[in-house]
Amino acid sequence: VTADSHPSRISPASPLDVEDLRARVNSALRTFLDGRSASLERIGEPLTPVVHALRDFLLDGGKRLRPAFCYWGWRGSGGPAGEEIVTAATSLELLQACALIHDDLMDGSDTRRGLPSIHRRFAALHRRSGWLGAPDGFGAAAAILLGDLCLSWSDEMFAGCGLPPSRLGRGKAVFDVMRTELMAGQYLDVLEQAVGGGSVERSRRVIRFKSAKYTIERPLHIGAALTGAPDEVLAAFSAYGLPLGEAFQLRDDVLGVFGDPAETGKPAGDDLREGKRTVLVAMALERAGEHQAEVVRRLLGDPGLDADGVDRLRQVIVETGALTEAEKMIDRRTEESLAALEAAPVTDPARAVLADLARAATARRV
Amino acid sequence: VTADSHPSRISPASPLDVEDLRARVNSALRTFLDGRSASLERIGEPLTPVVHALRDFLLDGGKRLRPAFCYWGWRGSGGPAGEEIVTAATSLELLQACALIHDDLMDGSDTRRGLPSIHRRFAALHRRSGWLGAPDGFGAAAAILLGDLCLSWSDEMFAGCGLPPSRLGRGKAVFDVMRTELMAGQYLDVLEQAVGGGSVERSRRVIRFKSAKYTIERPLHIGAALTGAPDEVLAAFSAYGLPLGEAFQLRDDVLGVFGDPAETGKPAGDDLREGKRTVLVAMALERAGEHQAEVVRRLLGDPGLDADGVDRLRQVIVETGALTEAEKMIDRRTEESLAALEAAPVTDPARAVLADLARAATARRV
Repeated sequence: VTADSHPSRISPASPLDVEDLRARVNSALRTFLDGRSASLERIGEPLTPVVHALRDFLLDGGKRLRPAFCYWGWRGSGGPAGEEIVTAATSLELLQACALIHDDLMDGSDTRRGLPSIHRRFAALHRRSGWLGAPDGFGAAAAILLGDLCLSWSDEMFAGCGLPPSRLGRGKAVFDVMRTELMAGQYLDVLEQAVGGGSVERSRRVIRFKSAKYTIERPLHIGAALTGAPDEVLAAFSAYGLPLGEAFQLRDDVLGVFGDPAETGKPAGDDLREGKRTVLVAMALERAGEHQAEVVRRLLGDPGLDADGVDRLRQVIVETGALTEAEKMIDRRTEESLAALEAAPVTDPARAVLADLARAATARRV
Repeated sequence: VTADSHPSRISPASPLDVEDLRARVNSALRTFLDGRSASLERIGEPLTPVVHALRDFLLDGGKRLRPAFCYWGWRGSGGPAGEEIVTAATSLELLQACALIHDDLMDGSDTRRGLPSIHRRFAALHRRSGWLGAPDGFGAAAAILLGDLCLSWSDEMFAGCGLPPSRLGRGKAVFDVMRTELMAGQYLDVLEQAVGGGSVERSRRVIRFKSAKYTIERPLHIGAALTGAPDEVLAAFSAYGLPLGEAFQLRDDVLGVFGDPAETGKPAGDDLREGKRTVLVAMALERAGEHQAEVVRRLLGDPGLDADGVDRLRQVIVETGALTEAEKMIDRRTEESLAALEAAPVTDPARAVLADLARAATARRV
């Protein structure tokens, strides 16, 4: 059974709903950045490269998943269409920008969606300008500070969305919990790479906090909390969001190993070269024989891994059955999520869009 | 004329006021951290080292200057003594913790107030545990994430201080401006080190944003804005805070070069070893002859600088007259600040404490 064959009484959403929201999120982000850019440039002309880097990074046409879940969490709980909730939801993109900028620096990633990552961009500026000191140190400092700016701006955009304080309070409480979970999840992820344990159980905890809660469950909760929704609505969103988040992250693990560089915006096998300890890798290690485990130990995380090495690692992941098991788990979790959505006490238009988002985020692409 | 000889009608503050506030800030910080530590440990047992590191860093008995200025900005504008303003003011220590943790990482500083900096502490944990990968990379990632946590918690503590939303709004607006100024100022500082220009004018802009506004003016404004104080009170706090901030940073520059390691918590001459482009260094370069400039170019920023090298750089700073000029500028700015304070439309107890804070922060210590 795949998610697509699930018998469903959910009617399909209008593709317009999803596209229209993305356009409104982009426009809200542009307006917000215009204001903040002006403040930065008033402080000093040397801040112009910061302004340009943030615009390029933030207005690059990402999927805007977290704003979508936040918005439909609100609409699903009976909140009216309006600009305030779009602004509140868009603030999550600024938090995500901080997470990505800091994550790329921690991982030493050179690119992000096909463009140089922020620390690489500023290292290049340093090199081009012939400045003193190490270009990489300058790049790292800029990435730390630009991430900090995005993190600060995120809560400013949320607080300034125009909803009355009485509404904002409950939403902000969830927003706050989510930020701590995100950073704690990132730490657990970094630790997991360092410990290199490869336990499926521990990898799944990382996913839960870093990905399932942060990308799906909490954005839905924020939207719902902003309408003052009762606890059963939040519980229904958890029942939909947590398994979906796990499926979504597993899809990402699979794409990171087998995905088309044109789609992922990263060189083929980049996750293997970085040595990411994903649930997919943990599954392969759990099933690996002596020789297969030796291949993983030797090649995973080798920065100079070539196409041949990538192929050998892919082979282990296929031959151990880890890929098949991951695809099965993606299907099961997506099923579970869609079943919870059918039963959820939410509005029908939201149900339709959330079903579409679930299918789109987890569908096979290789 | 030194600040101490300034004829003043300001009566001295009770030392109790300052000590008492520090104790209340420490207690508010401890209570807040207890709550957040529990949340982290619920996420997972491996977060215990994060909890310990943050407690050690935050409860280390810093001077709590920013909370003091925020608190006295409130009292000076007629706000009543109470726990809410202490909590709001204490949130600035969390912002400062983020700035210090990230700053130490950017500067590659090994210590902070005599203890290992956060990235060193986690690099040591990595090494001790025999984990995979580079200890320094792990330390850097942990420092980035712990700084992000402190930055997030800062606005949570502010928003949750217990003052009504109608009051909080104006204060939060200043809080937001301050964060952007801080990060922009940090970027300008990093850039100044890279460009190595050594212009007094540009170094003073860095001070203005990174130090004078962030440490003194904006905390006062936040306190005043929370009471709903009129614009002339905010203007008076600027007239007191900006010159004082410059004097305070110059005192720090002097201590960074000539200070007693027992007081600064850093090895003697550490700022010279790091190659910090301070206003003091810029003054020396502006006055330096050919040979003196050559000494600075060769030795400033040399990570292996020994006691003899430190002495030679100190000599240049003394012989060019830069030290004398810096001391004069500290005196003039402190004067200016105290004169503005006398004329300020603020309450007398606040006037007394703010005068004491100004003298304590700028007095000669070498």
